[in-house]
Amino acid sequence: MKKFQVVGIGNALVDVLAHTDEAFLEENGIGKGIMQLIDMPRAVDLYGRIGPAREISGGSAANTIAGIAHLGGRTAYVGKVRDDQLGAIFAHDLRAQGAVYETPFAPKADDKETGRCIVLVTPDGERSMSTCLGWSEFLGPEDIDEAMMRDTEWLYLEGYRFDGPDSHAAFAKAIRACRGAGGRVAITLSDPFCVERHRDAFRRMIVEDIDLLFANRAEILSMYQTDDFDAALKAAAGEVAFVVGTDSGHGAHILTGGQHWHVPAIPTQIVDATGAGDLFAGAFLWGLAEGHAPEMCGRMGCIAASEVISHIGARTEADLRALFAQHGVI
Amino acid sequence: MKKFQVVGIGNALVDVLAHTDEAFLEENGIGKGIMQLIDMPRAVDLYGRIGPAREISGGSAANTIAGIAHLGGRTAYVGKVRDDQLGAIFAHDLRAQGAVYETPFAPKADDKETGRCIVLVTPDGERSMSTCLGWSEFLGPEDIDEAMMRDTEWLYLEGYRFDGPDSHAAFAKAIRACRGAGGRVAITLSDPFCVERHRDAFRRMIVEDIDLLFANRAEILSMYQTDDFDAALKAAAGEVAFVVGTDSGHGAHILTGGQHWHVPAIPTQIVDATGAGDLFAGAFLWGLAEGHAPEMCGRMGCIAASEVISHIGARTEADLRALFAQHGVI
Repeated sequence: MKKFQVVGIGNALVDVLAHTDEAFLEENGIGKGIMQLIDMPRAVDLYGRIGPAREISGGSAANTIAGIAHLGGRTAYVGKVRDDQLGAIFAHDLRAQGAVYETPFAPKADDKETGRCIVLVTPDGERSMSTCLGWSEFLGPEDIDEAMMRDTEWLYLEGYRFDGPDSHAAFAKAIRACRGAGGRVAITLSDPFCVERHRDAFRRMIVEDIDLLFANRAEILSMYQTDDFDAALKAAAGEVAFVVGTDSGHGAHILTGGQHWHVPAIPTQIVDATGAGDLFAGAFLWGLAEGHAPEMCGRMGCIAASEVISHIGARTEADLRALFAQHGVI
Repeated sequence: MKKFQVVGIGNALVDVLAHTDEAFLEENGIGKGIMQLIDMPRAVDLYGRIGPAREISGGSAANTIAGIAHLGGRTAYVGKVRDDQLGAIFAHDLRAQGAVYETPFAPKADDKETGRCIVLVTPDGERSMSTCLGWSEFLGPEDIDEAMMRDTEWLYLEGYRFDGPDSHAAFAKAIRACRGAGGRVAITLSDPFCVERHRDAFRRMIVEDIDLLFANRAEILSMYQTDDFDAALKAAAGEVAFVVGTDSGHGAHILTGGQHWHVPAIPTQIVDATGAGDLFAGAFLWGLAEGHAPEMCGRMGCIAASEVISHIGARTEADLRALFAQHGVI
């Protein structure tokens, strides 16, 4: 048995969550429902304009790993913060959930701070994200512990990390170590605009190194440059052993071994959509690692996603195992 | 017309909110429902034991002032943070709510950090607080702007501040300036154990300088060393022009000018009791400053308190004016 069921690599961010309206997004040039990268001066300026906020640990893959830890999975996270107050908050919240977090803190000497994501939630529950990567951008191969990767069943890569300068080298090192020891690799495309920025690199990695692809409708359409969701899913299934396509309120599609399941979403009042895809992936991977059938993993993903969008913040608050039991999936 | 309707002086803290159970409180020597002061090593140790948390600006008087700003009142806050990330969060959240916050940030050279309060919420919604005052402890007379105090209708003092070394001198300076210019002074007793630590000093101030006393049942019983709530309220009414005694689910009592009103609480599902008294005081003071009758101010206080205990965090989330209108108090 390997030490870790799932190890995630991602951008380590603290979410700064505030409510706003559509007009504010427009006035401030913020694209609704997507993630935009901003630099620190823009982050300071934008922060000065938003209303009172709250700070909750975030980061897409970190949310996924926190969900797996919450479920009792053996899991670890690799992502870079600075040795500042936000960095301490980020590390605490992962460890307190039961995940291993040992990425070295970046030194205080540098002027970069721990990354943050200003998440603006509109009345419809949609979240629009402005991310200042800070130190998370500089995760490089030196931060990858090959022994950890060899001891990992599933390596989970966050697509957002394609934006960092040494990301590819870090991913390559982790993939080599994990697959070389018989582990498998999952990736999430993260965001349609992130796919657009890095389509060729994503595609190469998918074809060569990926065992499981997570993507939502917009992301997979962007990846395969088509308007046809079903065609995109099929194209992906021709390249990857496992394809999981999420479609928000319409549930999720799972394609593997020539089969195609559709799993319906759980109807919920959407308070804050942040983390829906992250928790879907966490529950799905936990299910796979625990040996559940793909369709059951998909149902677990939908239940976890519905829990996280029913409250503010992208980390699980309810007891997911109890919810799984209520829905009869475990 | 004075520039400020209400200026509050208090301990500037960021709340670190986490869920826990009764057993954890007992194992860690945390008194349920009260506030205990802890030093930084204990804060670090305790933080390492609690589950995932979220950070939301807090501080008792700061919550009150944020509520008044939310209602559109002309208000300012005086309380000390350091120039660190938590300090920036604290200042942002007050300013973003519309309150004036100009207290100088403490210099980076010192090793003290911005104060924080570890708020542990049990399944019954009760909150147990462990406060590391950090820089907030050192608010002194040099931080009091006499011109601001002269331009203030109501000065609002947080009883918790009696624990700081220069608190009395700072309060005295503020009271002198405010009352000397025709302003009035309100105080909250904050906590029964805080009253026990400083009973004589509280009593002297109440008799000599206070126009309005806020206290909950436990606090006023401790103040007047009796088991009889009604007797304590009457004793206070003999010393202060306005007495407002809150009694959690049993509503509030208002005694002034020989009259005594009882205002019922608004039934609510308690999610997190943090801030109930703070928001009661904020709505009450705003009502007074706007010229509403005492009983109406009490009803506003109960509505605001019921809103803040219905969610996590001690700052208002719903539109309080809309709630007041729904209840027919404005």
